[in-house]
Amino acid sequence: MISVNIPPFHEAAAAEARKRQLRLAKLPGSLGALEPLAEQIAGMTGSPAPRLRDKAVVLFAADHHIADHGLSLTNRDVTHIQVRNFLAGGAAINAFTRNAGARLSVVDVGVDYDFGDCPGLISRKVMRGARDFSRGPAMTRDEAERCLDIGIEMARAEKAKGLDLVAAGEMGIGNTTPSSALIAVLTGCPVAEVTGRGSGVKAGIIRRKIELIEEGLRINRPNPADALDTLAKVGGPEIGAMAGLMLGAAELRIPIVIDGLIAAAAAAVAAGIAPAAARYFVGSHLSAEPGHRLAMEHLGVRPLLDLGMCLGEGTGAALFFPVLDAATRVLSEMKTLSELGIHVPS
Amino acid sequence: MISVNIPPFHEAAAAEARKRQLRLAKLPGSLGALEPLAEQIAGMTGSPAPRLRDKAVVLFAADHHIADHGLSLTNRDVTHIQVRNFLAGGAAINAFTRNAGARLSVVDVGVDYDFGDCPGLISRKVMRGARDFSRGPAMTRDEAERCLDIGIEMARAEKAKGLDLVAAGEMGIGNTTPSSALIAVLTGCPVAEVTGRGSGVKAGIIRRKIELIEEGLRINRPNPADALDTLAKVGGPEIGAMAGLMLGAAELRIPIVIDGLIAAAAAAVAAGIAPAAARYFVGSHLSAEPGHRLAMEHLGVRPLLDLGMCLGEGTGAALFFPVLDAATRVLSEMKTLSELGIHVPS
Repeated sequence: MISVNIPPFHEAAAAEARKRQLRLAKLPGSLGALEPLAEQIAGMTGSPAPRLRDKAVVLFAADHHIADHGLSLTNRDVTHIQVRNFLAGGAAINAFTRNAGARLSVVDVGVDYDFGDCPGLISRKVMRGARDFSRGPAMTRDEAERCLDIGIEMARAEKAKGLDLVAAGEMGIGNTTPSSALIAVLTGCPVAEVTGRGSGVKAGIIRRKIELIEEGLRINRPNPADALDTLAKVGGPEIGAMAGLMLGAAELRIPIVIDGLIAAAAAAVAAGIAPAAARYFVGSHLSAEPGHRLAMEHLGVRPLLDLGMCLGEGTGAALFFPVLDAATRVLSEMKTLSELGIHVPS
Repeated sequence: MISVNIPPFHEAAAAEARKRQLRLAKLPGSLGALEPLAEQIAGMTGSPAPRLRDKAVVLFAADHHIADHGLSLTNRDVTHIQVRNFLAGGAAINAFTRNAGARLSVVDVGVDYDFGDCPGLISRKVMRGARDFSRGPAMTRDEAERCLDIGIEMARAEKAKGLDLVAAGEMGIGNTTPSSALIAVLTGCPVAEVTGRGSGVKAGIIRRKIELIEEGLRINRPNPADALDTLAKVGGPEIGAMAGLMLGAAELRIPIVIDGLIAAAAAAVAAGIAPAAARYFVGSHLSAEPGHRLAMEHLGVRPLLDLGMCLGEGTGAALFFPVLDAATRVLSEMKTLSELGIHVPS
C-alpha cells in the first residue's frame, strides 16, 4: 500500500516572492510568464528566493510487449540499446542534461534484456517488459506498487545528493500506447483524442493503436477512481516509477518538471494517487502528441514552450531547466528599485 | 562610410547538418523547431557540427531626450543607475547571462551622465543622449556612423576572446520610442501599429507617443531606402551600436540572437544597410511590444519563445542561449542510428 504525505503548498513563501518580484528593478510584469513561475517555485520549495542549483533527470527504462503488434518504427531491442547509449553519453537526453548542468540517472525497471554487470545502470528490474495489455493486465497491482516504490526510493536517493529540481525521463519502445491508455482513463477523454502516431510512421498505425487501446480498456476495465489499478492494468513499469519519483519529490518539496506524453501520463497517475502532488508540477514543453495537451489541462499545468518536440527521454523537461533557473535567479540575484535609489511614481 | 562584407550563408554546411540530423538516434523531426534551428547555425558558422561555447551579450547604453516628454515610467537618471547596476551584477541581464554561462560587456555610447573613472565600463560616448527627434534629427549622419563603427569594433573585440554566439542588449530610458519610429519607417507599417506602451503605464501615453513619432517622421523625413539616414534622424546611439554589432558579427559568421523591440529595430537597421546580415539573425522570444512581431516578420526571423516578456537589456536573447546551445549540441554529441546498430525500416 503506497502511503505518501505531500506537504501543503507554501502560500506565504509564494506571496513573499510576489512581493519581492514587484519591488525588483524592472517594470512589474515585464518578465511575463517567468514571474508567476518563479513564485510557484517559491511556494513549492517554501523559500521566497529559491535556488535551483542541483538538477537531475531520473530516466526509467522498460519494455512493452504491446509493441509486438508493430505499432513502433523500430523493434523492442532499441530499448536496451538506448539504455547503453544513455550510459555512454550519446543520446539526446545526455546532450540536454549536460547543457542544463544536470545529472542523469538511469534506472532499469523492466527492460526485456539481461544487462549483466552494467556500470552506471541502477538495476531495479521488476519484470521483463509490461505484458500486452490488449490481452490482460500489463502488471499485477503488486508489481505496479513496486514500481512506484522504486520511484519514491530514487527521489530520496537524489535528494541525498542535494536535489533542487527534478524531471522523470523514460525509454521504452511502445510506451506512447500505455501512456495514451492511462490518459484516456484518468482524464475521461476518448481514446481517439489522446492517441498520436508515437514513433509509428505509417498512416494505418494510429487506427490500429486506438483499437488495441480500446480492446485493452474493455478487457481490463481499469477503475478511473483508482490510479494504481489503472497503472497496473494499462500502464507500464517505467510509467509507474516515474509517478513514484514525482510523489517522492513532492513529499520533499522538490519541484518536478513534466516532460511530454509519457511523463504527463505518469503525472496523471501520481495526481490520481495523491492529488496534492500536482502542486509540485511545472510544465515544460507542449508535445506534438495530442494526448499531452489534454493530460496537462487535466493536471492544471501549463507547458510554456511550444516547439513541436516529441522525442521523449525527458528532453523537453531538460530543455526547460535553464529557463526555470533564470526565472528563479531573478528573486535572489536582482536588486530592488529602492536598493538602487530609483523612485517610481505610483 | 560604413562598408561591410557579409559572407554568404554556407548552404553546404547546413545541408550536411540536415543529413546528420536525419541519421541521429531519434525519430526524424522529433526535436521539432530545434532541428531547423541547428541547421541554420551550421549554415551561419560554416560548420556542420557547430559548438556554441563562448557566448556574450554586448549591452549598449544611451539616453534619449525625447523621454523628457514624460513617455516613460521613470526619469532618465535610471539609465546611468542601471548601467552601474549592470557592472555590479544586480540586474536581470546579469542573472540571465550568468544562467546562460555568457559574459556581459557594457558599453556607454550616449548616456547623459559623466561616469568618470568607472571600472568595467567600456566608454565610447558619442553624445550625451540622442536629441529629441520630434523637433529635429536625433543624431547627425556622422554620429550615427560612429555608433555603427563602435558596434563593429565590439564584435571584433569579442571575437578576439573567442566568440561563438552573441546578442545585442540595451539600456536607455525612452528607447522604445525611437525603436517604434525606426520600425515604422523601415517596415512601412503605420506608427500606431508598431507602438506599444513601453514603460509608460498610463492609458493616454501611447496616444502621445504615437503623435510624437508621427511628428518626428514629418519633420525629419527619413528615407526608408537609406537605413543610416533613418537611424540618424529617428534612432539613437545604442540602437546604432547594436546594429553595428550585428553587422560586425555577421561579417565574422557569428550567429546573432535578436532580443525584443529595440534589438529588432537595430536588426532592421543592420539589414537595411546590408541585407545579407539577416541570414545571421536568430529569433529568441516574441516581445509583448506590438512592433516586435512586425519587425521580426519584416526580417523573416521567427521568435520561438512566447512568454509575454518585455524587459529589455537583452534578457530574452540570453534566456534563449541555452535552448540554442541544446539544439546545436545534438549535432556533435549524439550518436547516429548506424553507430548504435539500430536498423530503421524505410
